[in-house]
Amino acid sequence: MKLASLSHGRDGMLVVVSRDLTRAVTVRDIAPTLQAALDDWDRAAPQLRAMAEALESGGLPEAFALDPARLAAPLPRAYQWADGSAYVNHVELVRRARGAELPESFWTDPLMYQGGSDTFLGPRAPIALEDEAWGLDFEAELAVITDDVPMGVSPEGAAAHIRLLLLVNDVSLRNLIPGELAKGFGFFQSKPSTAFSPVAVTPDELGGAWREGKVHLPLRSYLNGVPFGRPEAGEDMTFSFPRLVAHAARTRPLGAGTIVGSGTVSNRQDTAHGSAIRDGGVGYSCIAELRMIETINSGGPETPFMGFGDRIRIEMVDESGHSIFGAIDQTVTPYQPPR
Amino acid sequence: MKLASLSHGRDGMLVVVSRDLTRAVTVRDIAPTLQAALDDWDRAAPQLRAMAEALESGGLPEAFALDPARLAAPLPRAYQWADGSAYVNHVELVRRARGAELPESFWTDPLMYQGGSDTFLGPRAPIALEDEAWGLDFEAELAVITDDVPMGVSPEGAAAHIRLLLLVNDVSLRNLIPGELAKGFGFFQSKPSTAFSPVAVTPDELGGAWREGKVHLPLRSYLNGVPFGRPEAGEDMTFSFPRLVAHAARTRPLGAGTIVGSGTVSNRQDTAHGSAIRDGGVGYSCIAELRMIETINSGGPETPFMGFGDRIRIEMVDESGHSIFGAIDQTVTPYQPPR
Repeated sequence: MKLASLSHGRDGMLVVVSRDLTRAVTVRDIAPTLQAALDDWDRAAPQLRAMAEALESGGLPEAFALDPARLAAPLPRAYQWADGSAYVNHVELVRRARGAELPESFWTDPLMYQGGSDTFLGPRAPIALEDEAWGLDFEAELAVITDDVPMGVSPEGAAAHIRLLLLVNDVSLRNLIPGELAKGFGFFQSKPSTAFSPVAVTPDELGGAWREGKVHLPLRSYLNGVPFGRPEAGEDMTFSFPRLVAHAARTRPLGAGTIVGSGTVSNRQDTAHGSAIRDGGVGYSCIAELRMIETINSGGPETPFMGFGDRIRIEMVDESGHSIFGAIDQTVTPYQPPR
Repeated sequence: MKLASLSHGRDGMLVVVSRDLTRAVTVRDIAPTLQAALDDWDRAAPQLRAMAEALESGGLPEAFALDPARLAAPLPRAYQWADGSAYVNHVELVRRARGAELPESFWTDPLMYQGGSDTFLGPRAPIALEDEAWGLDFEAELAVITDDVPMGVSPEGAAAHIRLLLLVNDVSLRNLIPGELAKGFGFFQSKPSTAFSPVAVTPDELGGAWREGKVHLPLRSYLNGVPFGRPEAGEDMTFSFPRLVAHAARTRPLGAGTIVGSGTVSNRQDTAHGSAIRDGGVGYSCIAELRMIETINSGGPETPFMGFGDRIRIEMVDESGHSIFGAIDQTVTPYQPPR
């Protein structure tokens, strides 16, 4: 089934969405919000699934046409957003451009950062930016949402706690990252509010593309309407989602509604670190990677980060060309802080 | 007024607590949970305050005796926990023991990490630990809870968004920190679930001790019943709470119920980096600082981190000796992960 949240109050109003993303139905009697459904998943999920089947068969006269512009993030705010870096190619590339070695342990011990989860952006929300000099970049990722996960769970045990999948735009302020990471405590100001796809889907919606805890489909990014990346999310993912969830739960339990991200999807391809779509490759899921390749190839970056008016679209389609999660489609807009 | 959450479901049941912490009253008609009150603070706060006044005057027959063992954290789970390091002495000490210089910018640019906020511990909850070799330490801190804070707010503007204060035990796994920070993305596994004091209080409850965005009272820690620290929280706090909130909100808005911590309270004292209570000083708010002093003085640490059965009590009393927030009082217990 596919679930979404209409923009409504702080936590949205949960709706079940048709497989083709055109229709939806409210499910107030089952759960008012997605968080409420996740808090009580064993009870809520079968009822939501029955609604999804009724919606699919056309048996719900109260169903309405779904307008993606009316959607908040599936979880408009969450209790945890933990983002991994499962595509080690991305990490290696970023480091190589600045002349830093990749520690061998990065291939066996997942890199993960704790993200802010109190103010998420909906799939069509503008990205409000105060200063273009901060170097705004998108990062196209996949993520899972869990129910309650016990502390110290094994990767095998963690797999059963993955309830939903969705797409992420892990908005990053590239020019704030070096200074912030140099302080040693990880990202904070360099990671503003994160955006999510219109719907979150249960793993069965992915059919055979969901296997070994990975999603075996390309993740497509379009910058200002031009194809920018279509790497295979199932390839070069060094750490599966169950492995990432187990990493997050190593020393503490995870609360229901925890979102665990894959990190920027990135393929090594046949070259050292991939090629742009314009050069015949699968391209990239963030501008920084292309800038790294440009730096490696010609001594400096050529492609600018996103400025006011720039637009990013992130989507994943199935083998028949149908959108699975709907599209993240955001435009950068100027922000004036209060005095 | 003083607010707490009875252990009840995932988000607790909000109660107003008497100033002397002995009695409480439920306030379901005003707000079922503290998060609900913070989501609608301008409406809820005056009504909660009226209840607090009625409770104080003995006019509420439904009031009941408060048992701290029945309390969850004031926010049992939150949408954001952002912990600063406002006491730069603590940071300098930790770095000096490992031979690292303190960058000059640390005196002007706050250090802050994003903490996990999905599974907080109540004031009497045991600290479940799988492996004593991880080096469990307490960190005694103060924190504020905000309502909605706009992105880019000034420190002056941020002050008005501080609605509540409380005490924190920022539980840390010291022996996991070096490896994790070396990876560059900050803390994750080295910061298990954080614990909070029984009650959160509005700033006016601190009277004259709340000024310039700091709390001018000693923060008292007792390890296995022995006084371990009583540093003055108002001294050596390089960054005030409004400054920390503004730092957190620099590139994104903060959602209502955001918790912003001070970092480990630490006084420089007349010595280079403070003295233990047994040596006539004000002591420390974590074991690591004492171990650093021991290392600086004699080449190696002597005081062990916390093991199974060890107990930490954290409390702040007013000038008349009355507990303001109630006490955090936790014991370390063994944890067996699921197979």
